[in-house]
Amino acid sequence: MKQKKDITIVGGGLVGALLAIYFAKRGHKVKVFERRPDPRKTSVYAGRSINLALSDRGWKALRDAGLEQEIKRIALPMYHRGIHQPSGEYVRQPYGQPGQAIYSVSRGGLNIALLNAADAFDNVELFFNRKCVEVDFQTTEVKFLDSSSNEVVVKSDYIFGADGAFSGVRGEMMKTDRFNYQQEYISHGYKELNIPAGPDGQFLLENNALHIWPRKDYMLIALPNLDGTFTCTLFFPFEGEYSFATLTDAYTARKFFQENFSDALALIPDFENQWQQNPVSSLCIIRCYPWVRNQTALIGDAAHAIVPFYGQGMNSGFEDVEVLFQLLDSQSNWDKALDEYQKLRKPDADAIADLAMRNFIEMRDLTADPKFLLQKKIEARIQQKYPDLWTPLYSMVTFSHIRYSEALKLGKIHDQIMESIMNRPDIHSIWESEEIENEIITKLKAIKA
Amino acid sequence: MKQKKDITIVGGGLVGALLAIYFAKRGHKVKVFERRPDPRKTSVYAGRSINLALSDRGWKALRDAGLEQEIKRIALPMYHRGIHQPSGEYVRQPYGQPGQAIYSVSRGGLNIALLNAADAFDNVELFFNRKCVEVDFQTTEVKFLDSSSNEVVVKSDYIFGADGAFSGVRGEMMKTDRFNYQQEYISHGYKELNIPAGPDGQFLLENNALHIWPRKDYMLIALPNLDGTFTCTLFFPFEGEYSFATLTDAYTARKFFQENFSDALALIPDFENQWQQNPVSSLCIIRCYPWVRNQTALIGDAAHAIVPFYGQGMNSGFEDVEVLFQLLDSQSNWDKALDEYQKLRKPDADAIADLAMRNFIEMRDLTADPKFLLQKKIEARIQQKYPDLWTPLYSMVTFSHIRYSEALKLGKIHDQIMESIMNRPDIHSIWESEEIENEIITKLKAIKA
Repeated sequence: MKQKKDITIVGGGLVGALLAIYFAKRGHKVKVFERRPDPRKTSVYAGRSINLALSDRGWKALRDAGLEQEIKRIALPMYHRGIHQPSGEYVRQPYGQPGQAIYSVSRGGLNIALLNAADAFDNVELFFNRKCVEVDFQTTEVKFLDSSSNEVVVKSDYIFGADGAFSGVRGEMMKTDRFNYQQEYISHGYKELNIPAGPDGQFLLENNALHIWPRKDYMLIALPNLDGTFTCTLFFPFEGEYSFATLTDAYTARKFFQENFSDALALIPDFENQWQQNPVSSLCIIRCYPWVRNQTALIGDAAHAIVPFYGQGMNSGFEDVEVLFQLLDSQSNWDKALDEYQKLRKPDADAIADLAMRNFIEMRDLTADPKFLLQKKIEARIQQKYPDLWTPLYSMVTFSHIRYSEALKLGKIHDQIMESIMNRPDIHSIWESEEIENEIITKLKAIKA
Repeated sequence: MKQKKDITIVGGGLVGALLAIYFAKRGHKVKVFERRPDPRKTSVYAGRSINLALSDRGWKALRDAGLEQEIKRIALPMYHRGIHQPSGEYVRQPYGQPGQAIYSVSRGGLNIALLNAADAFDNVELFFNRKCVEVDFQTTEVKFLDSSSNEVVVKSDYIFGADGAFSGVRGEMMKTDRFNYQQEYISHGYKELNIPAGPDGQFLLENNALHIWPRKDYMLIALPNLDGTFTCTLFFPFEGEYSFATLTDAYTARKFFQENFSDALALIPDFENQWQQNPVSSLCIIRCYPWVRNQTALIGDAAHAIVPFYGQGMNSGFEDVEVLFQLLDSQSNWDKALDEYQKLRKPDADAIADLAMRNFIEMRDLTADPKFLLQKKIEARIQQKYPDLWTPLYSMVTFSHIRYSEALKLGKIHDQIMESIMNRPDIHSIWESEEIENEIITKLKAIKA
């Protein structure tokens, strides 16, 4: 096979654009086909502004593409969770060690930056309004429809399906024998609401925090945007006493917000309007396997869509790209590399899918729980004293490159240890004692041995 | 809504045809659209003869349709498992009480009988070579392509997707929001082989048994056909040391059969030819929910495809029809009846999916195990003495109309009790004792209390 290859990337979203850059830097000839119009020319996020939390895995993949500094300029660090208790109390809970942060970025802004970076390569061509309707896994050909419904067939050496949760490439794989697939919608959906900037463009809530209003069965969150606004997202059940099914009109919704999120409501002047205009979106977990059929591979959400509660959807997709290129760069047999990629990455995709659902429970249920906050303090203390022995699960996922599957495994061990520690009736008075410290470390060493 | 309704049934297989008969008997106007050609005119089962085991749930649904006697004429009772041990020993293990049997029927023959019965109604129209390509759940319209690729749109009051494991109607539901779906291929596939009849048309194996050659990781089974032949099915892993991947040629396959199934091999004169000609098919479990979108409902394999190891695929589909009509017959609000149908039936579909996988392990693993055979004897004895207290799981599933979900629950209780009984070191000598009997009954009563 020739040294430089023809690559077709289906999907020009975040992962597709980054993937194009990785291939382009290595001299391959890349064509990217995106179903939607060019986001640099038209707004494509009707009623959903969507911001994402970039963390270490995502940054690493961007750094390897030479984009870290550029993206940092459109990202806002969030150093802690800002928890708005039902009592009105506001509690800060650091995400990690001092200086560690996750970064709020706009999905649209990041996508545009990545598309521009890809477009700057001579060996990258971008096509928009191209819908993937057929993939031939034998001949490595993809058929697209353009905006006038003309058929275009593209043949290349390798095809990558980076076309998101509702991937057309995956849809074609589903027609092949022995393709395992699951789409699972969770009980909750979401609606976005916007908090405008203050009179002088200033932030009306603390801007270096991810705000959470945890309310057990549901929660509101808010992430800062560059322009001084916040994007709020209400995660709320579809059915039940308090649900999208019962908050049918803006008046009822306002009353509900008044009772549950009065401080947020006070910052949304046109609440009724937003409530009526903005859609309710559902949340889906997608699992499938295999990810590779001959010379066609799935990547990012197309291979593993997860719920957003760990802020790892994009980060895991970016890490897919990085892991893929570790394998492609180290051997000449790409077919073998693709097989290794799917085998290596599948357990990590499954792990982050599980972790994200766990974090939903934690965010809406537990951040309001004083015992949970104490546990986090104990864990942070142990981490500081024994950094080689104890990294909290959240930090492993967010601020490290430990495999997700490994992080999940270690996290379960931590849970087990902390459960017995937190069950001590005197834990509130002795949490900083040497006794507790020794107990944790002894248990940890016993398990690891 | 008018009293008599227009019904569109997508799929003219076993469940579709039976469903048509149920609706027709009640005076509704039924149109059935089948993707394949009319099986009464052409053979549609290339390389797969497929026979099925009809049991009590299936018979009940056929009885209610007035078809029991007719179908009995094309069905062969199998009263026991005929187990071909690796040692060459042949062991009979009754399926139930004396007289109880499951019945071998040809899928093709049964389908033809049901289509003829449906066709006999003036208010049923059958269409073949009609592929469902689109469903509009708002207008209750289905678009079909005929064999010349002409589009036909059919509007009706209700649509039923009885179009099997790879249902087109379900494919359309998958495009609607919050539709949960899973397709899971198991590690094993199958290949069919035929044992011809003897010189005078006689059966070359015992004809009132379902023959099993259990070999732990794989198994061969054989079911009798009306013409004196047997259809053998080899259930075999796709990958691994002994697998479809390694038995690549007929010579290697013959050698393997000689070592593992020599008595069966001796009855297949053209083994090499069959091995090469007959395809390897995969086995898929399909779960989804909801089953109903407005006036469109899924039924049978379209709603819940399972593995064949409990012989309940068709039976559960037929029971779907019966349960559906219990609900439709008892109320005028069909939309409500459809919602009740999906809520009632989903847990039973999940249960039989699990039970069928469990029975795979049991069939290939345990039927060769003397301890398992002893356990079956003890259970049969308890059942005979305490018929109101103890029905073995297999009998609940096969010879009763207890909900599958209930059977699974009770089966787990039985497992728990029998585990401790079978762990007694002296069980072989005292299995018929009053002590064992009392222990089982006491435990059972304790759990049920």
